[in-house]
Amino acid sequence: IRDELLTHFKSYGMPAEAFNWYARNLDHNVPGGKLNRGISVVDTAEILKGQALTDEEYFRAAVLGWGVELLQAFFLVTDDLMDSSITRRGQPCWYRVPKVGLIAVNDATMLESAIYHLLKVYFRKELYYVDLLELFHSVAYQTEIGQLLDLITAPPNEVDLDKFSLKRHSLIVVYKTAFYSFYLPVALAMRLCGVPDSYVLASSSESVAPYELAKEILIPLGEYFQVQDDFLDFSGTPAQIGKVGTDIVDNKCSWCINTALARASPEQRKILDENYGVEPTPEEQELAKKVSDGKSGEEQGYLGEAEKRVKAVFEEIGLRRIYAEYEEAVYKKISALIDNVDEGGARGQEVVLKKEIFRTFMDKIYRRQK
Amino acid sequence: IRDELLTHFKSYGMPAEAFNWYARNLDHNVPGGKLNRGISVVDTAEILKGQALTDEEYFRAAVLGWGVELLQAFFLVTDDLMDSSITRRGQPCWYRVPKVGLIAVNDATMLESAIYHLLKVYFRKELYYVDLLELFHSVAYQTEIGQLLDLITAPPNEVDLDKFSLKRHSLIVVYKTAFYSFYLPVALAMRLCGVPDSYVLASSSESVAPYELAKEILIPLGEYFQVQDDFLDFSGTPAQIGKVGTDIVDNKCSWCINTALARASPEQRKILDENYGVEPTPEEQELAKKVSDGKSGEEQGYLGEAEKRVKAVFEEIGLRRIYAEYEEAVYKKISALIDNVDEGGARGQEVVLKKEIFRTFMDKIYRRQK
Ligand SMILES: [Mg+2]
Ligand SMILES: [Mg+2]
Ligand SMILES: [Mg+2]
Ligand SMILES: [Mg+2]
Ligand SMILES: [Mg+2]
Ligand SMILES: [Mg+2]
Repeated sequence: IRDELLTHFKSYGMPAEAFNWYARNLDHNVPGGKLNRGISVVDTAEILKGQALTDEEYFRAAVLGWGVELLQAFFLVTDDLMDSSITRRGQPCWYRVPKVGLIAVNDATMLESAIYHLLKVYFRKELYYVDLLELFHSVAYQTEIGQLLDLITAPPNEVDLDKFSLKRHSLIVVYKTAFYSFYLPVALAMRLCGVPDSYVLASSSESVAPYELAKEILIPLGEYFQVQDDFLDFSGTPAQIGKVGTDIVDNKCSWCINTALARASPEQRKILDENYGVEPTPEEQELAKKVSDGKSGEEQGYLGEAEKRVKAVFEEIGLRRIYAEYEEAVYKKISALIDNVDEGGARGQEVVLKKEIFRTFMDKIYRRQK
Repeated sequence: IRDELLTHFKSYGMPAEAFNWYARNLDHNVPGGKLNRGISVVDTAEILKGQALTDEEYFRAAVLGWGVELLQAFFLVTDDLMDSSITRRGQPCWYRVPKVGLIAVNDATMLESAIYHLLKVYFRKELYYVDLLELFHSVAYQTEIGQLLDLITAPPNEVDLDKFSLKRHSLIVVYKTAFYSFYLPVALAMRLCGVPDSYVLASSSESVAPYELAKEILIPLGEYFQVQDDFLDFSGTPAQIGKVGTDIVDNKCSWCINTALARASPEQRKILDENYGVEPTPEEQELAKKVSDGKSGEEQGYLGEAEKRVKAVFEEIGLRRIYAEYEEAVYKKISALIDNVDEGGARGQEVVLKKEIFRTFMDKIYRRQK
């Protein structure tokens, strides 16, 4: 697939420097993640079909999976630039690679355009081609809207906790993460397998709008996933989550701070206002580096005073208990939604939604520790 | 159309700050240009149809025209950021507006996504909907490829004239400008008017591929337009072109420098190497500002010494004469291509290409002084 993109690029008569640049852009930014989102397309297609995919089917599902990964790469490259992030997936962020800089902006848009080139090459003749295009368009737009909301709610270097709320957190997470990470891979697989916009069940004669139904389950699931991510950023040790949590120092509009704000006493609120999004002093950073170099990562590393004070308030408020309660409640809620999916079979020959699609996602997520 | 975008945005339950931000993004970046590209869609549709458009037809052509303007806005916002430009269309570049900064990256991508939202709302039921989508996709990709080529050929703050050549200039211009400015508006109007992918002429029984034919004329026309733009940046006075030319100081891979490089003696080449892309000294900048404030703009303003030396080489080489010869030759060549367009009518009922489409473009461009 990488080669299809590069061969096409060469066919435009592009010189070697440009070709090599694009190859480096793709190699640096697209692989290297966990590929969860891309693999979900293949897994979901297999469940919908109810048997192993043929080589041809597997290939098509994989192309769509890479489309999701390209979309994610487009967002990560621009997000890291806007957030002034340092590393991503264990290597420097693309904009920080020598000679790249702001060219990363154009490189990111090329990753997005590559999606539509691939769709044209491999799906042009399919009846569902236009549905695939619309899915990528609308999910990209929704993600950009979520990103905007995040950027104006928690601007870099401007802490204002008044802008935060659990409602705002939910809106950001749904738009910025849940649509592209959860709904998009499943909806793509549904199109690939020919799931129609609506079908009537043989069992109950009820009419089902399967894409709406999938969205109603996957969006809350995506929100739950991000709440976990936020909680693990606070509670996880480096050995456990593979990185040092930075949400507090980075002024992130995370589930933790929003939950704390909703329950804080005036005194606690004052501590949060004064210490959230505050960089550690240079001496503290020095010390943190020393401590982390000499440790196994089993415990939290050395933290700056400001971050410690925020974490102390989180503990006082009982964030661990609140999270455990949240997790059980949301698990029950989403499980009920999944149980409600009627697999009674369509009256026609249509492929219908299956509980297993959503169960698989849930099993990967529930009570995860990393 | 602006309201359609904003109403849809609101329908996602977005808070007022986000809504207002998006409205400001649209208002700052989309209108305010000459709208040449957008208007071309309407004009071309009128010529193809051979009569005035109905209100309904006019509206649809205008939506496509705004699509082209949105695409251009997407490119200008990111281009200005990558080029560290100061002003655009008489106002500060979007990334320089207070509080915007790098959020401009996400804002630019929202302008692009808005295109696909509009196309879905107004064209979803048309048979040519997918053709419109593919046109925008492929032209956006081509423009990004041209931008990449430009960025690696003339990186900001790194002058290396060895990378330049007239061939490289042509490749950059074709991809970065000609596709979206010339081919896109015409091809959109052709789709709108139902011009098919191919038709057979009643007169000659010849088979025509009208989109290929349009491209063969419009791409050279777009290249000619950009060569003019480059030449006027060198030769035009501020009163004439409405701005102070900065291509020399900005290390632009322009037609002028590439033509000069192709003909320079070793001594002239040395002068170009040493003075191209060199910023004026602070004292020179100070002086230039004073001079321009006291002048009517009838003459060239005060230039830095480095820029003067480059311009002197351009004059020595006879750039004005070379340009005049180029212009006559390219005019003849493109006019011959236009004359060759066969309007003999299609055998079926199809709408066919007309010379007048291309003549109209040519008449607007030929020997323009601004
Ligand atoms: Mg980030
Ligand atoms: Mg971010
Ligand atoms: Mg996180
Ligand atoms: Mg520029
Ligand atoms: Mg530029
Ligand atoms: Mg110019």
